[in-house]
Amino acid sequence: MNKSNRRKFLSTAAALTAGTAANAMTITPKSEKYGIAHQVYFWLKRIGSEEDRQELIKGIKTLKSIETVREMHIGIVASTEKRSVIDTSWSVSELLYFDNVGGQAVYQTHPIHLEFAKNYGHLWEKVVVYDSALI
Amino acid sequence: MNKSNRRKFLSTAAALTAGTAANAMTITPKSEKYGIAHQVYFWLKRIGSEEDRQELIKGIKTLKSIETVREMHIGIVASTEKRSVIDTSWSVSELLYFDNVGGQAVYQTHPIHLEFAKNYGHLWEKVVVYDSALI
Repeated sequence: MNKSNRRKFLSTAAALTAGTAANAMTITPKSEKYGIAHQVYFWLKRIGSEEDRQELIKGIKTLKSIETVREMHIGIVASTEKRSVIDTSWSVSELLYFDNVGGQAVYQTHPIHLEFAKNYGHLWEKVVVYDSALI
Repeated sequence: MNKSNRRKFLSTAAALTAGTAANAMTITPKSEKYGIAHQVYFWLKRIGSEEDRQELIKGIKTLKSIETVREMHIGIVASTEKRSVIDTSWSVSELLYFDNVGGQAVYQTHPIHLEFAKNYGHLWEKVVVYDSALI
């Protein structure tokens, strides 16, 4: 093995070892692009007000510029088949991806997020959050 | 304008008209890759059973092969800061993307999905679904 090949071999071996160590820490190999999905559902005070819904959507869009937000998806109740397990009582959904818990923490106390809560908080009656660690 | 150019012009004009009509139907221009986010939260019967959780995750993974499922993300409760609006009582989250309501309907009655409900349904006590039409 010449010097260059030996160097390549060593760096490959190091990468493989690092990979094994990372896998040992999780139950299944990690295949997710982002670590955290922050899923939020809003119930408007004025249920059925299209004006308030659009206003809230406008507010949610401001959160996109927070530097730790990797992806944002905004939704309204879909016209899928009605079944007892489906909650259709909410008004707007917000789905944000973060790299990790630290990214979510930065978002939570970010001035843009605080501004959003201050300016748009009067619109909703209830909010429910599910924070998923993606596996 | 020769015949070929005229044809190009007409098809471009038709595309532009179709685009305008599509935009008129939605409030903001559509920027989402997929039309539907199907967000599901499971509460295990045996809360805290790591064995049951892994079994359920194994079952959820089988749903990935349904042809209308565009993306799948599976999660467990993240270690984000505890706040009153955050629901941390669930055990496993499942997030599927579909192109549209039709894709979700195909999934709902697909043999693989029915098989999943039959084989793994005994594991959960409660399931809540939020179907979002992404805007």
